Amino acid sequence: MTEIKLGIAGLGTVAQGVLELIRRNNALMRQRSGVSLRVVRVASRRAKPEIDLQGAHFSTDIEDLLTDPNVDMILELIGGDTTALDLIRRGLAANKPVVTANKAILAAHGNELMAGRGRQLLRFEAAVAGAIPIIQGLSGGLAANRLGGLFGIINGTCNYIFGEMEANGTAFDEVLAEAQRLGYAEADPSFDIDGIDAAHKLTILLALGFTGSFDLSAVFVEGIRHVTVADIRFAQELGFKIKHLGIIQNTDAGVEARVHCALVPGDALLANVNGVMNAVQINSDGAGETLFSGPGAGGEATASAVLSDVLALGALMASGNGIGVPSESDQSSERLSDQPALVSMSDVSCANYLRIPTVDQPGVFAQVTQALSEFSISIDAAIQHEASSNQSAVDIVLLTDDVVEGTMNAALERLQRLDIVAADIVRLRVAPTL
Amino acid sequence: MTEIKLGIAGLGTVAQGVLELIRRNNALMRQRSGVSLRVVRVASRRAKPEIDLQGAHFSTDIEDLLTDPNVDMILELIGGDTTALDLIRRGLAANKPVVTANKAILAAHGNELMAGRGRQLLRFEAAVAGAIPIIQGLSGGLAANRLGGLFGIINGTCNYIFGEMEANGTAFDEVLAEAQRLGYAEADPSFDIDGIDAAHKLTILLALGFTGSFDLSAVFVEGIRHVTVADIRFAQELGFKIKHLGIIQNTDAGVEARVHCALVPGDALLANVNGVMNAVQINSDGAGETLFSGPGAGGEATASAVLSDVLALGALMASGNGIGVPSESDQSSERLSDQPALVSMSDVSCANYLRIPTVDQPGVFAQVTQALSEFSISIDAAIQHEASSNQSAVDIVLLTDDVVEGTMNAALERLQRLDIVAADIVRLRVAPTL
Repeated sequence: MTEIKLGIAGLGTVAQGVLELIRRNNALMRQRSGVSLRVVRVASRRAKPEIDLQGAHFSTDIEDLLTDPNVDMILELIGGDTTALDLIRRGLAANKPVVTANKAILAAHGNELMAGRGRQLLRFEAAVAGAIPIIQGLSGGLAANRLGGLFGIINGTCNYIFGEMEANGTAFDEVLAEAQRLGYAEADPSFDIDGIDAAHKLTILLALGFTGSFDLSAVFVEGIRHVTVADIRFAQELGFKIKHLGIIQNTDAGVEARVHCALVPGDALLANVNGVMNAVQINSDGAGETLFSGPGAGGEATASAVLSDVLALGALMASGNGIGVPSESDQSSERLSDQPALVSMSDVSCANYLRIPTVDQPGVFAQVTQALSEFSISIDAAIQHEASSNQSAVDIVLLTDDVVEGTMNAALERLQRLDIVAADIVRLRVAPTL
Repeated sequence: MTEIKLGIAGLGTVAQGVLELIRRNNALMRQRSGVSLRVVRVASRRAKPEIDLQGAHFSTDIEDLLTDPNVDMILELIGGDTTALDLIRRGLAANKPVVTANKAILAAHGNELMAGRGRQLLRFEAAVAGAIPIIQGLSGGLAANRLGGLFGIINGTCNYIFGEMEANGTAFDEVLAEAQRLGYAEADPSFDIDGIDAAHKLTILLALGFTGSFDLSAVFVEGIRHVTVADIRFAQELGFKIKHLGIIQNTDAGVEARVHCALVPGDALLANVNGVMNAVQINSDGAGETLFSGPGAGGEATASAVLSDVLALGALMASGNGIGVPSESDQSSERLSDQPALVSMSDVSCANYLRIPTVDQPGVFAQVTQALSEFSISIDAAIQHEASSNQSAVDIVLLTDDVVEGTMNAALERLQRLDIVAADIVRLRVAPTL
């Protein structure tokens, strides 16, 4: 029985989840994987003596994880960037396996960290979609497939907010405040609701499944602040649910990568992923449509993913296969040389949902459709309800045919300037066929 | 670059899918896994010269796969039992990695085959739920968790039949005939619609996730022949969908394993898995509720799973870690010694749906509830529609509270003997809380 001695950086929710799962399930993990885990050192800037560290040495100096020769594997669970990046870099340089849940660092420094021995030593299942083994699914379960598309609900906060808006008709701001109260959203919610967190995760999925290269700037990003309860209701009337999606599409022109709100057919499996759950659907040439769903956050859920990496690396270490020595199977250079083209967002084509608040007077519908036809944009569906007595404006809701993003943006600018348009137009994209 | 030389037994749909995926995606697989695949030998009793064998030797003698020293890995894709079992046994005995999609053989001989070196050399991702990497999910992604329950739509034929009955109101027999015409059901459909196929798959999931032991006889099995369109409609009225499920529950009394029709809440993700798709939901202590869905059958979908095993084994072979030599990490004996108790079906407790066809006369409802109360069975919901003029019988539909199976069976026997009961009672179990 090989014992793997762990050094844990950080003592937040995820690190506590890791400690708790090891305490509870170590015997089970040993039976399954043939390796036994022992936490020998925990380092955190904030001392937290009330947590049972299972006999591990505690220090407030992260450095100790690198200098302690007893540490076989480093778990970077502090989050943030500078210190975490430094720890990962130096761990890898010292030939130690490193497990991290740090999506921001991977999105920004993935190419550097995954070069050379990093490809064998660094694992990050927990960085995308929490408990869902999606990295393993992409790299292992679907390894024989050419991936055509990926559609992910990869930010639980956004999914929770839309769900509450839909269920209770509560306005965005109010739901956000409630989410913050429940701990589903941060005090500064921007990271989640402006799509940055989802973009980090999509960058990782893009690299692993499609391009071989981590490139955050290749991902188009839009958040959820502009969506109202009215939009959710109109979308429903058209047979859709609004989800905040990460989308990757492998098209003839190249690879599209984008994070934005999207209308999803109401009977699609993805449309029925509710609350803070995450889900990723992958369409591939052999396996067809596969979907993985589960909790996208939470201490033990994330710890489950961290430990799946620890056990996989541990099994390799136990088998004595020279982990860490760049081997014949290190193909990172080949991966990178074969990088497909990325499609710029302005060239992406999709159908659009438009909610156009107009003054309540005859002829507005004609003016709107006239403006769109000048851009050769045709309309697939339209909704216009009678104005209620207390409304000065009335919403015209349109579903367009597929339009190239650049054209749609120009048309929107034109529409917004029409005298009959009474307020900001809301534009949402329709998800590609799932 | 390590080249793995494959010997394929069989030339049916799955084997053809494997050949096609290798032809199409070998370069991609090489980039991802660092191993290159070459098919060096194909053996099938039926010669099929019209298929491109990519330069592999062809023979009608399976034996040749074992005697050819060039074959690094054997893919058993012939199905059936005697020949396939013999091939797997002899491959393992010769220390060759073996990949199989043969659920029947694993369900019956898993303990023997997975003992000793089999645990390292034998893989069977394709044996359960086709393209879905559920074995990898159980053994890898969720390895740090204690599993509480598993709920699986693991037979696409049954799921397709219920879907058609629901969508079009078509009777079971008619849908079955159509499924046979479309190739979704076999000429002898018993294997699928009587639950045998699902029981084989559940046996594998039971062994890997819960008990460490393959024991088909521990799985309670019931098929779908007794379900009518009326039942699907009544279930809908009560807020449920009818699915044919494989269920494993880890309870205080032990592990339950059962395959039968079950009422699932209409808004559950599993309820929305449609057509021939499969899905498995796993509830665990750390990761919470995770769900994996995808195509459960089909040549390339199954081949995708076969090749995920081939690539994982190939990567181990390339790393030179002594695969096949029973190592310290071979814990199969430890697994088996720690086997939890299995709960007999008669002790399983669940809520039940009863459709009781009664003669149309006053007082029948009272007689039915009186009979149930004699067994201390209480009723949670009831439906009784007015009889239409052309009906001699009228259905009383009841949803019971949780009842122990043995008691429910005794009560059903009593009910069926009542004079007012006009035809066979249909009993369906309600799924445990997902």
